[in-house]
Amino acid sequence: MTESALPKRVKIVEVGPRDGLQNEVAVPTSAKVALIDQLTEAGLSYIESASFVSPKWVPQMADSADVMRAIQRATGVTYAGLTPNLKGFDNALAVNTDEVAVFGAASEAFSQKNINCSIDESLARFEPVISAAKEKGIPVRGYVSCVLGCPYQGQVPLADVVRVAKTLYDMGCYEVSLGDTIGIGTPLQAKEMLQAVAAEVPIEHLALHFHNTYGQALANISACLPLGVATIDSAVAGLGGCPYAKGASGNVATEDVVYMLTGMGIETGVDLQKLIAAGATICQHLEHGPRSQVALAELAKQGK
Amino acid sequence: MTESALPKRVKIVEVGPRDGLQNEVAVPTSAKVALIDQLTEAGLSYIESASFVSPKWVPQMADSADVMRAIQRATGVTYAGLTPNLKGFDNALAVNTDEVAVFGAASEAFSQKNINCSIDESLARFEPVISAAKEKGIPVRGYVSCVLGCPYQGQVPLADVVRVAKTLYDMGCYEVSLGDTIGIGTPLQAKEMLQAVAAEVPIEHLALHFHNTYGQALANISACLPLGVATIDSAVAGLGGCPYAKGASGNVATEDVVYMLTGMGIETGVDLQKLIAAGATICQHLEHGPRSQVALAELAKQGK
Repeated sequence: MTESALPKRVKIVEVGPRDGLQNEVAVPTSAKVALIDQLTEAGLSYIESASFVSPKWVPQMADSADVMRAIQRATGVTYAGLTPNLKGFDNALAVNTDEVAVFGAASEAFSQKNINCSIDESLARFEPVISAAKEKGIPVRGYVSCVLGCPYQGQVPLADVVRVAKTLYDMGCYEVSLGDTIGIGTPLQAKEMLQAVAAEVPIEHLALHFHNTYGQALANISACLPLGVATIDSAVAGLGGCPYAKGASGNVATEDVVYMLTGMGIETGVDLQKLIAAGATICQHLEHGPRSQVALAELAKQGK
Repeated sequence: MTESALPKRVKIVEVGPRDGLQNEVAVPTSAKVALIDQLTEAGLSYIESASFVSPKWVPQMADSADVMRAIQRATGVTYAGLTPNLKGFDNALAVNTDEVAVFGAASEAFSQKNINCSIDESLARFEPVISAAKEKGIPVRGYVSCVLGCPYQGQVPLADVVRVAKTLYDMGCYEVSLGDTIGIGTPLQAKEMLQAVAAEVPIEHLALHFHNTYGQALANISACLPLGVATIDSAVAGLGGCPYAKGASGNVATEDVVYMLTGMGIETGVDLQKLIAAGATICQHLEHGPRSQVALAELAKQGK
């Protein structure tokens, strides 16, 4: 696969309200709703807003149905939710979730520790969800975690990443999001990984989901853009943290991604200042300020 | 200019003890000495250790001579100091400073505000310093600030960056360090700037000096590496802050640069864990922890 021109436009998949807040202290339902409404207002066209995983496992997301009922929906914006199984899917549908997502791992050890089953078992569990979604005309997104390394097994063979991504795509996921769950990858490795997956799954059906734990996320995204990838997952204010290294950063900050892309002449449709305001507001409920260099610099300039 | 292969080895110019600490609260002389000694121990081969600017302007650096006298010097390691004028140069020489540096700006407005003279006046002032250094056989490094934008005038014409860099090189600076002083550049812009300068000054005589104020530093460095640049300025623990946006980040963290380069198969000769320890130690004297994602992640993993 050769390098093409940079994409003219990138779709940002805002994962702050879900992947972000799920790894923070619990915040009130009203704060989640306000956050999603502010993100809509800032021009995000895809907002992962809820998780229909059992509240036993993820108590921070127990109010997902209430959130989905309360948000102000804008035309053209997708409000998505995570659905590990049919029960979750039914719950998602009951509150008019636009799209759902399933999540697998490229690491056998991570799959066992995180979702208590093998990779193949997890893929089998997604089948009824994907079938039901097809029947209802609901698009399904697939996540692959640990694509650049695993907190338990260390290195993750590239072949495993490709296999899981291709399986999810072949099963019917319209988009597969490649997650550097612990944020340890570096640019050449990220590019090599994306090239390998793109040899099996068309690049327009792939997304990057990079965490900034080791500060590499923007460099990794930048290294991958010339391959033509045009969907980037990120979280406003870098919400999320890293459950495997408490105190470390989580998702790459949407502010930082938008700033970089804009500087590269790539459109996102996002209003940076409104985005920064959204991040600053939700952080009032957390134990830390925004984990976005762009937000910190702009807020400092504004004397905030 | 076409892209060459990535460099096999990158020289890190550690600027934490000078560019870093000059923009932090004052720390005791003994802490500076300990920091420089720890950096030597970590394998850094070039440490900007002192500034011979008038203490009226930079009180944090008033003890530079004491620092230079107290540090443990290792063979093969360069201990450098900033010298704005002949008086500074004499002071630097009196304490056996291995190399000196002069600093100009690509922005007329910045030059006026920061060093109270025009760009051309500043360049003229460096002449006696460079002449004296030549006579004594002391290498001179040149800094150009605001290469990707200025806090006062905004955009900085590329032609001005090229002109100042080329002038410093032609005057006798063996290396010209290109500074994104306010950390606002993005990858394509950084690469375009370096390409323009490298058309006039051989790339092996150029260094990148990027700040991380907007989180872009690693992405910018990564974008520039294929042009063959092999000298990177950085500060342990991201020491430095940004005087133009209080609370925002300063120099790109050496830990993060070393981590990225190592992951790309590029040698630096630096021991990452010792480097992280050096950063954590100096931050005990500051009002904040390390501004390095790598340091935060590793310290968190170690339960610190």
